[in-house]
Amino acid sequence: MAAADQTARRQRGGGGAARRAERSAVSFETARYIERNIPNFEILTPEAIEIIEHNAEIVLEEIGVNFVENPAALQRWREAGADVQGERVHIPRGLARSLCATAPSRFTQIARNPARNVEIGGNTLVLAPVYGPPFVRDRLGGRRYATMADFEMFVKLAYMSKWLHHSGGTVCEPTDIPVNKRHLDMLYAHMSLSDKPFMGSVTEPSRAADSIEMARILFGSDVVDSQCVMTSLININSPLAFDSTMMGSLEHYSAAGQACIISPFIVGGAMAPVSVAGTLTQVLAEVLAGVAYSQLVRAGAPVIFGAFVTSIDMNSGAPTFGTPEASQITYGAGQLARRLNLPYRSAGAFNGSKLPDAQAAYESANSLNAGLLSGVNFMLHACGWLEGGLVASPEKFVMDADQLGILHKLAEGVPFDTNAQAMDALREVGPGGHFLGCAHTQENYASAFWRTNLLDYKPYETWSEEGARDTEALASAKLDKMLDDYRQPHLDPVIDEELRAYMTQKKASMPDAFI
Amino acid sequence: MAAADQTARRQRGGGGAARRAERSAVSFETARYIERNIPNFEILTPEAIEIIEHNAEIVLEEIGVNFVENPAALQRWREAGADVQGERVHIPRGLARSLCATAPSRFTQIARNPARNVEIGGNTLVLAPVYGPPFVRDRLGGRRYATMADFEMFVKLAYMSKWLHHSGGTVCEPTDIPVNKRHLDMLYAHMSLSDKPFMGSVTEPSRAADSIEMARILFGSDVVDSQCVMTSLININSPLAFDSTMMGSLEHYSAAGQACIISPFIVGGAMAPVSVAGTLTQVLAEVLAGVAYSQLVRAGAPVIFGAFVTSIDMNSGAPTFGTPEASQITYGAGQLARRLNLPYRSAGAFNGSKLPDAQAAYESANSLNAGLLSGVNFMLHACGWLEGGLVASPEKFVMDADQLGILHKLAEGVPFDTNAQAMDALREVGPGGHFLGCAHTQENYASAFWRTNLLDYKPYETWSEEGARDTEALASAKLDKMLDDYRQPHLDPVIDEELRAYMTQKKASMPDAFI
Repeated sequence: MAAADQTARRQRGGGGAARRAERSAVSFETARYIERNIPNFEILTPEAIEIIEHNAEIVLEEIGVNFVENPAALQRWREAGADVQGERVHIPRGLARSLCATAPSRFTQIARNPARNVEIGGNTLVLAPVYGPPFVRDRLGGRRYATMADFEMFVKLAYMSKWLHHSGGTVCEPTDIPVNKRHLDMLYAHMSLSDKPFMGSVTEPSRAADSIEMARILFGSDVVDSQCVMTSLININSPLAFDSTMMGSLEHYSAAGQACIISPFIVGGAMAPVSVAGTLTQVLAEVLAGVAYSQLVRAGAPVIFGAFVTSIDMNSGAPTFGTPEASQITYGAGQLARRLNLPYRSAGAFNGSKLPDAQAAYESANSLNAGLLSGVNFMLHACGWLEGGLVASPEKFVMDADQLGILHKLAEGVPFDTNAQAMDALREVGPGGHFLGCAHTQENYASAFWRTNLLDYKPYETWSEEGARDTEALASAKLDKMLDDYRQPHLDPVIDEELRAYMTQKKASMPDAFI
Repeated sequence: MAAADQTARRQRGGGGAARRAERSAVSFETARYIERNIPNFEILTPEAIEIIEHNAEIVLEEIGVNFVENPAALQRWREAGADVQGERVHIPRGLARSLCATAPSRFTQIARNPARNVEIGGNTLVLAPVYGPPFVRDRLGGRRYATMADFEMFVKLAYMSKWLHHSGGTVCEPTDIPVNKRHLDMLYAHMSLSDKPFMGSVTEPSRAADSIEMARILFGSDVVDSQCVMTSLININSPLAFDSTMMGSLEHYSAAGQACIISPFIVGGAMAPVSVAGTLTQVLAEVLAGVAYSQLVRAGAPVIFGAFVTSIDMNSGAPTFGTPEASQITYGAGQLARRLNLPYRSAGAFNGSKLPDAQAAYESANSLNAGLLSGVNFMLHACGWLEGGLVASPEKFVMDADQLGILHKLAEGVPFDTNAQAMDALREVGPGGHFLGCAHTQENYASAFWRTNLLDYKPYETWSEEGARDTEALASAKLDKMLDDYRQPHLDPVIDEELRAYMTQKKASMPDAFI
């Protein structure tokens, strides 16, 4: 636009060359985590919340939860006053909720670049990439098992993505590295290729311990002992079972004061009842038991109320995403988390599509929008997820990561200062006029509207001449550029050496395992 | 699933043949218009609403609005107490709002099939297809000027779409019919190919009169005189101008007691200030003036508070869709409409993409979700929109129309009866169990979860074997089937003959015009 160009020229002065330089400058900017200035959407009535909370206590007391192959956990529960029968823990009404009270309502996870520390809880929203896929699909190479090279690519993309605050954890499963050693390479990639906060390993308690040891090298033991440097994903084996692998990892992290996302993993209809109210009841019971247990390990350990919920397609048995039931549960669980004063994790760029196509985008957008309005504080899988989580897609990563900018702007709410009211503009322009050239537009255009860094806004003719590219093709070009532009953030060579030595020694200490 | 299959078999009894017959049965079912059982999302604080309402009155009184080339309108305003200077109408503080008070807060638009009558206002949401595109793009034929054959195709698709309550209006511009005659063919298509409610012509006051005459033939004059049979789109020439074509059409419809959507048409930054608060102020001022004028024409005439708002991309000048600012305005304008007790029109499957790809879906989903939660009562463009409204796409129509099912389910809210609480299921299954086979699942699986009728939930291998189709390809196959299955709803041959005679006589009365 003329107005935009004129002002830009005036501000920069240098003419064509300067403009070109600015256009080609690489941005390593990361937006601050979101602080919502908008209300949460509350789908549950106070009566509904009361019923769910009442029923969840019945579940804990009368049905109970299993802590599997974990005598120490059973002993902790006994000492806390629970009725333990075999591996079944019956938690008296009110006990779990009262134990949860020692968990912080908000905490800081620090990054090695302090500008990228994140606050988790209250009105914040921290965005982290896809977690867990064993496959990668890209536009040129198709679908294949993920490798460590893919893993490093995703860490770089997350580092280069302005709207991602967090490097995540298992951005994909590097299947070319032995299963008992890959956590070391994965952690090292997050620590060395990015300076954003990251997650630790949970696939074995000893790997959680390794994660903490490597964090001690990176941050220093004094920092690890006094602050949260990792937020790790502890899934509950729904319904109502807590396995010893996940609980063993939780015990390491909680004892070290590191944060755990305590997260039912529910495919509704299979691992929970085929109703929203029933599923919310189960989610609440499971989180109450899990968070209470973390506080038995160490009162005050930071935790996040997690809710990963999808529902089963009753025709095919496949999990489904971006559905209305998933949105209802996301909204409802947010209300339950706030009643506990706990940070909340849910939603993500979830979808069941095989391709980064319209299905993938509809379903992802449904979930991302619900995530913002439900008060999510930590959103895992915020970009890159495909095919029900089996696949990580770099194109989808870039597409979703662009959409995350929308959440930032929407969360700011509607400004109402004198400038925002724009009465001068309305007076200046008047009936039948045009706002492009008016003073208010000249002063505000640069920051007025969120703008995509990916999607196509061009006229049809220009778009056709440029190859009539769809979103996937645009994303493919964009990600190539991001990887070309990537520069590794500086890491102290002494620390780097120490991390490598730890990995070498650990790897040498055990034979390779692939299952 | 085993559970699903068993129950289905028991219920139907007939085995394979019966199941196949049921699967291939054609559904002409149309869902009832949505009645929300969930709260609206309110992004504006009471203070913000007060500021906007205050500023809108300043706009009306001090800046004023233009009623262009319309002496009768200026006379009506003079008589109502406005200060008219040339074509500029300055409306004293409070006058427009008090005039709006005679408009109904909710009204029924009847359809020739009474089961398809819609209620517009209060907690309802009525969904209508895309309106206005001069082009059509389909997967096989590419992008081209729309024809009457395309128009008829979209009317058929809307008739066959379960989640669409309304046949809409200019589903595309049939450019092969003279511009001064095409409204007759368009109305006849809605009246004869569908039995859902529809919209009238607004491109010339005489065409609004024709619309009313044809409605008299279809419904009978007594019905048209006493009930709303058309809801027509009256755009305001933003900023703050009311042209004589649109106002002439409004005068016909309002005088006949037919409904008008009074809708600012705003590309923010061009036709409104580059701020959400400023745009909302202008929207409110424009709607206040337009609705007040409709009530001067006939107190009690049904109207809808419209807000079509997009914002300009400051780099290219293109309109943008699915943006955070558009969502904020959609939420905010809903609050302003409710303060006036008026039905509200906004949102739609808006996007700027050239293809029904991920961009189209992200942007559409962003807008559809905001539309539901902002309390929209009438959603035009709810399906089929592409390329900023230049293009109607049958594949996108089918894709969006499937997503509209999600809005229906989400709007139902969360049931909390004993069955929904599912405590029996939780007791029956217990820790580590599986819900698929439990009694509660058996009884509830069929209606428990919304299910797509289009998107792909199949395993990767099956999907690959079936051709690895993307969403557009799935939609293309689906729309072929819908058009194959289409059967025209019965229309009284006498009425049909009378409609045709009216068209023939009208067409013979004037030469063809193409601009």
